[in-house]
Amino acid sequence: MENIKLASLKTKQKTFIKVGDITVGKDFVVIAGPCSVESEEQTLHTARAVKEAGAHMIRGGAFKPRTSPYKFQGLGLKGIKILEKAREETGLPVVTEVMDPRDVAWMCEYVDVLQVGARNMQNFSLLKEVGKSKHPVLLKRGMYSTFKEWLSCAEYILNEGNPHVILCERGIRTFETYSRNTLDLSAVPAIKELSHLPIIVDPAHATGKTSLIPSMCLAAVASGADGLILEVHSQPEKALSDKNQTLTPQMFSRMAQNLFSLREFMKKMN
Amino acid sequence: MENIKLASLKTKQKTFIKVGDITVGKDFVVIAGPCSVESEEQTLHTARAVKEAGAHMIRGGAFKPRTSPYKFQGLGLKGIKILEKAREETGLPVVTEVMDPRDVAWMCEYVDVLQVGARNMQNFSLLKEVGKSKHPVLLKRGMYSTFKEWLSCAEYILNEGNPHVILCERGIRTFETYSRNTLDLSAVPAIKELSHLPIIVDPAHATGKTSLIPSMCLAAVASGADGLILEVHSQPEKALSDKNQTLTPQMFSRMAQNLFSLREFMKKMN
Amino acid sequence: MENIKLASLKTKQKTFIKVGDITVGKDFVVIAGPCSVESEEQTLHTARAVKEAGAHMIRGGAFKPRTSPYKFQGLGLKGIKILEKAREETGLPVVTEVMDPRDVAWMCEYVDVLQVGARNMQNFSLLKEVGKSKHPVLLKRGMYSTFKEWLSCAEYILNEGNPHVILCERGIRTFETYSRNTLDLSAVPAIKELSHLPIIVDPAHATGKTSLIPSMCLAAVASGADGLILEVHSQPEKALSDKNQTLTPQMFSRMAQNLFSLREFMKKMN
Amino acid sequence: MENIKLASLKTKQKTFIKVGDITVGKDFVVIAGPCSVESEEQTLHTARAVKEAGAHMIRGGAFKPRTSPYKFQGLGLKGIKILEKAREETGLPVVTEVMDPRDVAWMCEYVDVLQVGARNMQNFSLLKEVGKSKHPVLLKRGMYSTFKEWLSCAEYILNEGNPHVILCERGIRTFETYSRNTLDLSAVPAIKELSHLPIIVDPAHATGKTSLIPSMCLAAVASGADGLILEVHSQPEKALSDKNQTLTPQMFSRMAQNLFSLREFMKKMN
Repeated sequence: MENIKLASLKTKQKTFIKVGDITVGKDFVVIAGPCSVESEEQTLHTARAVKEAGAHMIRGGAFKPRTSPYKFQGLGLKGIKILEKAREETGLPVVTEVMDPRDVAWMCEYVDVLQVGARNMQNFSLLKEVGKSKHPVLLKRGMYSTFKEWLSCAEYILNEGNPHVILCERGIRTFETYSRNTLDLSAVPAIKELSHLPIIVDPAHATGKTSLIPSMCLAAVASGADGLILEVHSQPEKALSDKNQTLTPQMFSRMAQNLFSLREFMKKMN
Repeated sequence: MENIKLASLKTKQKTFIKVGDITVGKDFVVIAGPCSVESEEQTLHTARAVKEAGAHMIRGGAFKPRTSPYKFQGLGLKGIKILEKAREETGLPVVTEVMDPRDVAWMCEYVDVLQVGARNMQNFSLLKEVGKSKHPVLLKRGMYSTFKEWLSCAEYILNEGNPHVILCERGIRTFETYSRNTLDLSAVPAIKELSHLPIIVDPAHATGKTSLIPSMCLAAVASGADGLILEVHSQPEKALSDKNQTLTPQMFSRMAQNLFSLREFMKKMN
Repeated sequence: MENIKLASLKTKQKTFIKVGDITVGKDFVVIAGPCSVESEEQTLHTARAVKEAGAHMIRGGAFKPRTSPYKFQGLGLKGIKILEKAREETGLPVVTEVMDPRDVAWMCEYVDVLQVGARNMQNFSLLKEVGKSKHPVLLKRGMYSTFKEWLSCAEYILNEGNPHVILCERGIRTFETYSRNTLDLSAVPAIKELSHLPIIVDPAHATGKTSLIPSMCLAAVASGADGLILEVHSQPEKALSDKNQTLTPQMFSRMAQNLFSLREFMKKMN
Repeated sequence: MENIKLASLKTKQKTFIKVGDITVGKDFVVIAGPCSVESEEQTLHTARAVKEAGAHMIRGGAFKPRTSPYKFQGLGLKGIKILEKAREETGLPVVTEVMDPRDVAWMCEYVDVLQVGARNMQNFSLLKEVGKSKHPVLLKRGMYSTFKEWLSCAEYILNEGNPHVILCERGIRTFETYSRNTLDLSAVPAIKELSHLPIIVDPAHATGKTSLIPSMCLAAVASGADGLILEVHSQPEKALSDKNQTLTPQMFSRMAQNLFSLREFMKKMN
């Protein structure tokens, strides 16, 4: 564990990160919104719906890391401005992915949390740049990454002077083909015994199947996760990305009630 | 899914398996006991303790599938007789692993549930033999096996006329080295949308680390699992196998309360 | 490496196993034949063809470990007798898979080499039984197995007093879906620095694609493998199993010339 | 395969890339040099040695993607200038890794081939930038990446107007712990049946063990690879990175003779 110093539990008891009205690491946080920002109407509609259902932050991708150059690459700056509008209207902080170190500085003007995606977990130039920014960073686990490698990537950010790192388990790549990836919920207690950083769970990218998401959300809460990040779209079948793992606002709303009530129950247990 | 007929949800709504006083698939089942049967004293002591803590069945290995021929291979028939005594004393049904098709018939005289271990999941001779026995079978997922291959193995048992199959998720092999294997809790909702067979979870073999077990037990309950199987030993540090993933009776007892209360909570939720 | 004693390079320099006219471990061995024994005609036809092309042993499955109970399970004893006929006619020794410890003794009367398949690599009852037989054993690597676990399984056989173990790399399970499994040729030098046992390569099961087989055969020879095992069928498209990875006798014959000439070249190199 | 258009074999027969005196895709190319550029003396010494042994290009890292922020990160511009000197002295073209899109333009002034490392395979900003550069690009396979995802990343580069892409298999992550990663030589015939792009092999990063490298080099040549990339250091035990997989100039020189002679033999075979 010589590579993990600032992120280690030996350094600090617990990291709290204030974003809007919520304190990640203390409060249970639910982040929801579309996979991609596709239009102002779609984004605002979803933002209002997830707010009403109890979400604490809005997510939405303006820069999309797509396997193929021929697939929708995101609206870029235009998408970022739509997210800004969604924040204005709902009051909810915005999380969005940054893919290029050159975009970090200006994106900090618009968004509340910078997401580093699974494919960029070991993009060390990007890690250093978000580290310099002091903005809260949501660092996804690479789909091929061990817990310790992941914490080493967090260490890159912390080492630049930015202590605001939220880890996000999003599934690892295995031989199983029924689910898109394999959600590794043991990441939650493992990270908690290694590090003071908060950890949330992304069951949508992990499973890739709407039908598996509710159970995995409940399991994540029971495992002690600090929050969840989910994909919600008013018309999943028309979504430009990830349509098989996207919830409708109705599904999200119903599920959120269960999650909050389970969370309350779990708090009393410990 | 042409390989999965008798195990398919299309054939049947739900399988219930009566073992002792409990109905697997309907009641939540907790199976506990030592990894290996080492002595009468150790086994009876643990059996009494887990009964008191609320376990519904005793587990214990008399035939041990060990990586090395030089490691403790189990007490064999002597171990089976110790388990019989534990059942007499506690009234709890006994689950134990069978590794050889030649042992199936006589072991049915002594034990209540035959376990087919992860390494033998595709030992088709053994599957056919336990299929002929009509005894309840606990079929563990191979550590390299997809959901569909696993259900195909259940199909081998069902196809011999034995409908009493309980599936058990026990972790899959991945690149992660912090945990022994990676517990795949998405198996629970996935199996439930494919099959009518009950599914329980084994967090000890999956994680290989005592510290990760309580969170993974809670997560398994929240995911909708039909039960848990756990390793309990009065002196884990002296256990002849799996000492790093074994709970003390005290730890088990404390945890069991949480599990039962979470299970009650979850029942009201749905 | 405490689990690997008898199989260790520290114990012995090199194991030679005499089968028919060939000495495995010294001579380069090519084993060929159909995946399944389907009929006398098909088997004898293929046996003659592979002999003519230079194969040293015939392979053919009479007991087939199939994922599904509804797929062709092999001809059993009838298939074994067909293999016996093929041996009589061609003079080539026969390799066939044994799946049940109860079949070991009688199968030794009919066949020259007992194969333990990948799915049974850790079927310890079977390993002990083939260990007692003293017959040459072809031990395939489990698709989820490390080198050391594999050698530990060989150790089970050696420990019963049977030193005649030939290892066979047949691909491991990974996330890649283009090939059926991933052929791990580093097994060849790795096994050779750990053990004195001969190691051959099965590129057909590893790749699952006829088009990838010739290159992987050449690579296996260059890596220093002690031999190859291949699937040949006169009408691959009609084969009852593994039709996508089966060579025609013509393809096999052409390829064999290249393999033998490369092998000669490699011998001069060292 | 809708994502793979420009990289597809349907578009073009074969890509040839002229670098210095050699044509990658036509001539067999051997790239050698230290993992990291550590000093002028070490780099020039190694460069001279590998040239004498027959290498066609020099490799050396000036920007190092290290798991930990506390490990040697490379000499940066200073390292690039040392590589420039090595090129001047030996006349060999230089390959080095670029990790940041902001470095692409100026690095093109100094080096001949830009390497995109395994961890950055899906760093789409970087792919687009090297695509715009028109410089030859060595694109390593991500350690979690399928053949088709890898070709999709090549497609990002081609789609920006840069046709000069050389693919490099460097091992994938599996459960095996004896080797660092698992070298997947089936990538060679697989890529050749999907694409016109040349493919070379990096056995050092794949195996992570000096003892396994010679066999894997020979196997790579026999599989039909278009070249090899290797790590050479005059004092491997003092190397600042990858010391367990680095060859001495003497080992490299001896091996290179075997590789070239095998290559000649293989050419006559086809």
